[in-house]
Amino acid sequence: MVRKYVRFEVAGQQRYGVLEGETIHALAGNFLITDEQTGETFATGDVRLLAPTRPTKVMCIGLNYRAHAAERNKKIPEEPMLFLKPPSAVIGTGEQIVLPKIAQNVEFEGELAIVIGKRAENVSVEEARDVIFGVTVMNDVSERYYQDKDGQWGRAKGFNTFAPVGPCVVAGLDYQDLQIETKINGEVKQSSRTSDMIFPVDLLVSFVSQVMTLEPGDVLTTGTPEGVGPLQAGDRVEITIEGVGTLVNTVRAQA
Amino acid sequence: MVRKYVRFEVAGQQRYGVLEGETIHALAGNFLITDEQTGETFATGDVRLLAPTRPTKVMCIGLNYRAHAAERNKKIPEEPMLFLKPPSAVIGTGEQIVLPKIAQNVEFEGELAIVIGKRAENVSVEEARDVIFGVTVMNDVSERYYQDKDGQWGRAKGFNTFAPVGPCVVAGLDYQDLQIETKINGEVKQSSRTSDMIFPVDLLVSFVSQVMTLEPGDVLTTGTPEGVGPLQAGDRVEITIEGVGTLVNTVRAQA
Repeated sequence: MVRKYVRFEVAGQQRYGVLEGETIHALAGNFLITDEQTGETFATGDVRLLAPTRPTKVMCIGLNYRAHAAERNKKIPEEPMLFLKPPSAVIGTGEQIVLPKIAQNVEFEGELAIVIGKRAENVSVEEARDVIFGVTVMNDVSERYYQDKDGQWGRAKGFNTFAPVGPCVVAGLDYQDLQIETKINGEVKQSSRTSDMIFPVDLLVSFVSQVMTLEPGDVLTTGTPEGVGPLQAGDRVEITIEGVGTLVNTVRAQA
Repeated sequence: MVRKYVRFEVAGQQRYGVLEGETIHALAGNFLITDEQTGETFATGDVRLLAPTRPTKVMCIGLNYRAHAAERNKKIPEEPMLFLKPPSAVIGTGEQIVLPKIAQNVEFEGELAIVIGKRAENVSVEEARDVIFGVTVMNDVSERYYQDKDGQWGRAKGFNTFAPVGPCVVAGLDYQDLQIETKINGEVKQSSRTSDMIFPVDLLVSFVSQVMTLEPGDVLTTGTPEGVGPLQAGDRVEITIEGVGTLVNTVRAQA
């Protein structure tokens, strides 16, 4: 059964819930731990959606779609290329991506992201599904000038607000062949399918779990398809994954 | 006043304390929050020291000593090179560094690490001291084969146990010119001074805070001096920083 889960703020409190259409059924706690509904319901328009998870780490895969590797003039990797974003970069849908003062060329990267459901290490490809709670949408926002200059991507991909995640986490969805589309100000920039990944999701989960212990709520984002491009102050970014929803963020300059 | 703080386990509980010689004076809570002593004391030999902090992120600087950049055949960077380790890699003094099955060439890197005391962003060099709680010792354990192969260092430096931190956090110590020494099985391999850094500590704190919000307990490690070398199963690694103490870890192969 496919279920959509959200984290949200209402009356100054952070809550979790199950999303059905425009209605949120409040849960007694974090959806990673409980499915118990409190009986309260909220309209999505009456609450503020938050990033649906608070990861201890955000694991990212570089160059996982062939056509994107080509547009960045990179070779197809032999193995997944793993890097990290800090949890401090995570924002939710509806929040603003901030272009840092020192930034020269910030780009969007629409991605399918996995949310881990249980603590695990050394997971086989076959076991990967058991440790995945669900999937969400992520924007792996990247500053290209520092990405090329620094060599390591800690700065270029680690700025505050450079990890929008949301709007919800979807459990029970087959994530192997979903449409993924990024629009900037209504214009389609990225349009691909998750079946075009070089390394499929289950392999990535297994790969990463050989390196680091996965924790509940951790995010693993799976790389971006071709069509990446610049973000300017005032832009509206909408990343939609079939069956998941749309992550919406606007862009502003740092004050 | 110079004070040493520890986190430790006794009777199945995690506690915090102030270290005086071989005596721990227990605190009412995390030393980042309280200095209130409970009146209980413990001998260090009767407790298990833990990594003194539980960071939300471990920020690392590459190539921050001239002679180490040379030994790795790298150019001196124009600006600090920032990368991240996952919190899942953190272990304390006395714990074992595990050589992953897939590893080919694991090396030690003794480093001075900073522990952040308060949430902060956009900190000036002059303000850096106000957000630093204290300093500790870290081993930026690195797998050289994947470090070179992958390009990004998420795998090579992110394996479980690849971030030993401890034994204590020292507040009030002038960290600008401290002796740092690494011994493998009693033999000195690294011997340098923190004054040999290319980018000094306060500049690094300021630099990183322009990118990402610093959180209490976060770790910023400041690069390693020359003399890095391999770790083998059975090795004993001792990294000593003057005025701080010695981080001791033994090495074993993954089961």
